[in-house]
Formats: sequence, structure tokens, C-alpha cells
Amino acid sequence: MCALQTPARGRAGGFTDWVGPAAACRRRVADAFLDTFSAWGYEYLATPLVEPLETVAAGVGGGRQADLFRFMDADGRLLALVGERTVSVARVVATQLRTRSFPLRLCYSGPVLFNRPPLGGRRRETMQAGCELVGHGGLEADAECLAVAAAALEAAGITGVQIDVGHADFVPSLLAAAHLDADSRSRVARALRHRDLVAVETALEGTEAGAAERALLLAFPTLRGGRELLDSAGARLSEGCRRSLDELARLWDLLDTHGITDRVHLDLGAVRDWDYYTGPTFELFSAELGFPLGSGGRYDRLLASFGLDAPATGFVLHVDRCCDALQRSSGPVAPAPVLRILYARGRAAEAMAVAVELRRRGLRVALDLTPAEESAFEPGVRAAWVDAAGVLSWHWPGHSGSGLDGLVAAIPLLRGGQP
Amino acid sequence: MCALQTPARGRAGGFTDWVGPAAACRRRVADAFLDTFSAWGYEYLATPLVEPLETVAAGVGGGRQADLFRFMDADGRLLALVGERTVSVARVVATQLRTRSFPLRLCYSGPVLFNRPPLGGRRRETMQAGCELVGHGGLEADAECLAVAAAALEAAGITGVQIDVGHADFVPSLLAAAHLDADSRSRVARALRHRDLVAVETALEGTEAGAAERALLLAFPTLRGGRELLDSAGARLSEGCRRSLDELARLWDLLDTHGITDRVHLDLGAVRDWDYYTGPTFELFSAELGFPLGSGGRYDRLLASFGLDAPATGFVLHVDRCCDALQRSSGPVAPAPVLRILYARGRAAEAMAVAVELRRRGLRVALDLTPAEESAFEPGVRAAWVDAAGVLSWHWPGHSGSGLDGLVAAIPLLRGGQP
Repeated sequence: MCALQTPARGRAGGFTDWVGPAAACRRRVADAFLDTFSAWGYEYLATPLVEPLETVAAGVGGGRQADLFRFMDADGRLLALVGERTVSVARVVATQLRTRSFPLRLCYSGPVLFNRPPLGGRRRETMQAGCELVGHGGLEADAECLAVAAAALEAAGITGVQIDVGHADFVPSLLAAAHLDADSRSRVARALRHRDLVAVETALEGTEAGAAERALLLAFPTLRGGRELLDSAGARLSEGCRRSLDELARLWDLLDTHGITDRVHLDLGAVRDWDYYTGPTFELFSAELGFPLGSGGRYDRLLASFGLDAPATGFVLHVDRCCDALQRSSGPVAPAPVLRILYARGRAAEAMAVAVELRRRGLRVALDLTPAEESAFEPGVRAAWVDAAGVLSWHWPGHSGSGLDGLVAAIPLLRGGQP
Repeated sequence: MCALQTPARGRAGGFTDWVGPAAACRRRVADAFLDTFSAWGYEYLATPLVEPLETVAAGVGGGRQADLFRFMDADGRLLALVGERTVSVARVVATQLRTRSFPLRLCYSGPVLFNRPPLGGRRRETMQAGCELVGHGGLEADAECLAVAAAALEAAGITGVQIDVGHADFVPSLLAAAHLDADSRSRVARALRHRDLVAVETALEGTEAGAAERALLLAFPTLRGGRELLDSAGARLSEGCRRSLDELARLWDLLDTHGITDRVHLDLGAVRDWDYYTGPTFELFSAELGFPLGSGGRYDRLLASFGLDAPATGFVLHVDRCCDALQRSSGPVAPAPVLRILYARGRAAEAMAVAVELRRRGLRVALDLTPAEESAFEPGVRAAWVDAAGVLSWHWPGHSGSGLDGLVAAIPLLRGGQP
């Protein structure tokens, strides 16, 4: 069983119930992310689901306010349900945490909501977990964020991850070198965003861009590869365009120290939220999904809109998409098994004592609510039986026994491992 | 530092940022609750933050819709942000889970929202975690829910918990025995709800209630105590009123088997949501707070409003209030310590290897982003130093050493325990 996408009686369109293995997977993935963030020294904080619209507008997707659930508070103030949490973290940093010593490592996890039409199974509520590293402007901070994101996906059991790394300045510097007017720039940028080279060519028609610039704009966005790409590309570029390539080269070396360049591809054509990102950017993909599992980058201007001049970099992981990827790669993952304990009349207290002891040892135990006849105890199920004499016994496929000590020793068997 | 209640720049009124120890506490408490529910065999599920208003109206507080954030979907359907999650779980049971074998043990955790004026520090977003035990009408199910709730609070470290147990039928049966008209009944009920005996007396004036019924209504709501209360009270009552007392007596014996009667008080005057609860009800308190940490009870009619005729009982725990109680009893609980690793120029790779190994062993490690001079390494802080020769060393109060093995052995010291 997995999260049903079909509308059911009495549920709002576009919203999902997570039940069975899918729900267990979602909790496990979110916990693996937060535990990884914590291991790297990131401090957990929780921000509200509701923010003033003016606060939300400072963040990434400020132009996408129509995608948010918005409403008016009793005092007339416009509020929104958050569609991401970086801006809330920035608000907290700029207010409650501004006197802390930097750099600050912060992380979060929680739902975000989108008021988009519930078409094609698109979720209107998803779970996001992420990190923000505030107060360090160097590429070491970007490298650490990439490494934490990769480590978190690994901890959640997601394999075959690919990380596309780009730079927010690269394509704008190409456009600047081509001497385009504002209108042509935005048309070319839009075409590049969709990786539509025909549209790029059309948008360049009638502009002052020379043949060399045309060739660059048509060639670079399709350039993807490893570190060698930077040298071959850099040779063909002016000083201004080379600056971001130099940064990516240094970032690559740092990622190499972190041991993750095996899964990194440079993507010079990445065009993502120019108003927001100010340096290296990245997206994380899995072989199983067409959508990114997460994304991040440097955003050195956001905190200034909350009155704090500090550089920052960070990333978000999409918990639900990670669950999708896990389900597609390994199939539904069963939640930890539950042992059912049945008992004869008059033996509730003994059965309860067994349950207490097994739970203390980390086993999941559901104790029957009423006594049963011995015939109700089916051998072969994950169950144990306390008989009329108070004796505990079990008969699983390939393993049976009696007594609490024996059952304790058999716990790993129940979990699917060896005793 | 704890969750600030004062309005800060750019945050919506009535919403809270959880930072520092308070945030760590909130995550720890919610995890302790879910882990306990899981140990008792309860299956985790996640329901949406948004439900159709008609769905929400089926639940407890259906009359309190004005307290919810409500808005209209693009198709004109009225939606609401959930103020509790039992009704959502009931919806899931009655749709996706109706073919499962009963009893069903289900649990959840997540935010709920209230559109009430942000006065007196009242939170408009809180975190709730709870269990629902569906498909068993016996008192054994009620007893298990009480026991799980008590175990969850204990697992979260909350001490001095008191559980007030009442019965939804008791006060109504007293009112029925007093032959009041509908109007007087509701006035008496309202007065009882506020435990205002003067108002009860006023409401009884001019009614047909005899002296005996008056005395009962004025006496019983103040009756609180242990099992002996049931015998002394029962002797003075008619058959109809005794039925709920008999149930409480049997429930008491079941709670005794669970070993939790030391913290249970019977509260015959409990008046809680008659439209919703249909049997035993309970509230959990701590010595530190005037507000309940959680509440629950039997609600045998809710599932029928989703087309499934099944009994059910359950409870909710208020995570934020539990954090409040913990902070008041034990003061702010520090999050797990973070070890900072500093390193000399050229030793980033060695320092990173140390960080990787320590994280693997469960330690939280923040690796400096850039090399430092040895003078930056202050003895006495939670820090370690990789020097220019690549040697790891540390100097904490009462403990210093060098080498990875030594630092691994010292991990318990960092956590505040013994090495």
C-alpha cells in the first residue's frame, strides 16, 4: 500500500494521506535527514506554518505568491502558508539569533503548502527538510552544504544520486558579454531556463550579439561534465565570464576533499532564480525520478532584506519525492514488524509483563485486548501465546520456542535478521 | 533561551519560533511520543493539514469552526486548516483502511492551527501527537489508551503526571434523573462545565428537580478521588446513574493491571464535549501547568459520520505544553553537545577524516570551514585541534589527550557522562 493519489470521500483535492509503509518511510526519511544535519552540527529550529505575506515575499519564489494559500488576519494583515522555510529561518537569524557568533548552522523540517490546482497528482502539501549555513561567504560553506545534502540522502538509503552544480553568475555574465538590451536578455534567459535552443536562437535574432556570443550562448547551456569542462570552457571566455568558472573549479576541489565528486556534474547552463541566488547553486537528482530530490545554493542578499548583512548558503530536501524515489527503487519498505501477544483467560497480567519487557528491548508489541482461546493462536503469524498455565510460547516458520528469554533472543529474527 | 513569545519583526502574531534548547526539546518530546506509540504497536500515518470544512465539522469541536483558519478552494469548496487530527484519522479508517482487520492501532503527529486572537501569548499553531484505537468497544481499549498516554509522557521525561478520569454519561444521567427541561439542562451543564456551583444552584431554581437531585448535582461534580469514591457515590444513586460508575470501576481494575492507578484520580464532575464522547474520558495534567498536557476518551459515534459503524477510543498529547512543563520542572534542556574541530593550514583533509569517524560514532561535529592559527584553539571549550603535523589533540577541563582513539574514548565525557 502506498499514498493514494485518487480522491477519496471527504478529502480535499491535491492532499495526500500517508498510510502503511509509505507513512513509515516518510517518517524514517525525515528522521534520517534531521539526524544527519544534527551530526554535522546543525541546530534544529522550528518556524511557523504561517508568515506575513511581506515576509514570504522576501524569499525565493517571492514572485510566485499566487502559488501560496493566502488569507487575511483579523487585523487586516495578509498572511500566507509557507511554501518554503529558508525565508523564515532568515527572519529568525536576523532577529533572535543576530547576536550569536557566526557561522550559524541551522536546520529544519516541516510541511509546506502550495495553492496550485490539484492536477496530475500534484501534491499541495509536501514535507521539506533543509539546512542553512549563515555568516560564511567562502566556497567552503557551499561545499559543506553539498556534502551534508549528499550525506543526508545516503543516510536515508537513496542510492544513485546525481548532483548538478551550477553558478548563478555564469549565464548572466554571458548575457552581459553579448550586450543585449533588457528585453532580449529576459527572452534569452527564459529560453535558456527551458533549455530551448531554438528559442534562444530566435530571441537572439535582431540583437547586437555577435557570432561569437551567439555560439557561446547556444553552446554553453548544454555543457555538462566534470572539472575538465571548466578548463575547456574557460579558454573561450572573457575575464568576466571566467570568474564564476574559477569559483566552480575551487568548489570542485573542495568537493573532492569531501569525497563526493563521483556524483557531481557541472551544469553551466543552470538558470535558477537569479534574483535570489548569488553564487554556486545545485540540484540533487535520482535515477528514479524526473524531479529534483532537493536543491540549494548561495543567497547572500536575503538576510539584508531582514536588516542583517550576512552571506548565507543552504539547501532543501523534498522528503516526499525522496520517498517516491525509494519506493520506485526498492519497492515499499515494510515498517518494523509488530509482535502480537495473545493470552488465555486469567493471564492478562502475565501477558502484559511480557509486553512491557519486550517493548523495553525495542520490539513493537501489540497486546490483545481480551483473552483468546488457544485455537485463535495461528502458528506462522508474528504472534506469541501465553497459555492457561502462564507459559509463553511461539511457533514461527523455522523457529519456535517458549519462555521470555528465548523470545528475547529471537527478536532479531522478527526484525528479519539473524537471532 | 526558549521560544520567544514577544512579537518580532516580520512574524505573524500568535505564531512562535522554536529555537535553541526549546526546539531540541520539542523534537525530542515528539519523537519520544511516536516511539512509544510504535512500541505499543500503533501504526504511524500522516494526514493533511487541510481538510474540507464538512469533514472537520464531523469531529470534536465541530461547533468551534470559528476557531479554525478557513478559506475557499478554487472550485468553491470550503476548506479549513485542521485544529485536531482525530477526524482525519477517522476519515482514513473509514475509506482506505475499512477492509483491514480490527482492532486498528493508529498514531500521528503534526501541527494544528487555530484562528484565535493572539492574546496573552496564546499559540495559534501547536504540535499534537496522538493515538486512535478503532474497532474495540470494550474498556480494555480505553485502559490501553490511558496506559499508552502515561507511558509516552514518562518516555518524554515528564514527571508528576496526574490523570483525571471521568465518564461522558455520568453528569447527563444525573441531569436526566433530575427531570430538567432542555433549557435548564443546558444551563446546569454550562455551570457544571465551569465548576461554578453557585451558578448550578441558580440554574436549578424554579425547576422540578427535588432536594435529593439538587444535592447530588451540587455534590458530585466536586467529587474526586480513587476507587473508593465509586462505592460511596454509587450507594446514593439510581440504577441509570450507576451504570457509568460501574464502568469506571471496571476501568480502574484494568488500569491497576497496567500499574498506573497511582497517578489516576476519578473525576465524576468532568463535563467534556457530550456530543462527541460516549464513554470514559480523561485528561492528563502535570504539577507545573494549569492546562492539560493531553486528553482523550471513547468516541463511538464519530466513524458512523464517515459511513463506518465502529467503536473507537483515543487520545491526543499537546507537544508544546509538554515542552512548557519540562522547561518549568527541569529548566531548559541543552541539546546534545557539538564538538568543534579546528585545523592548521593544509590539514583540512585530516580534520575531515576525524569528523567523519566521530559522526559515525554518534557525535555531533562541526568542522571549521577554514584553517585556523593554533592560538584560535581555546582550551576548555568543546573543541579539538588538528595541528600542522596532522596530530589531533584536545584540552577540556579535567580531560585532555591526543589521537583519534583517545577522543573516541572520551565521547561520553562530551555528552556529560563518564568516559
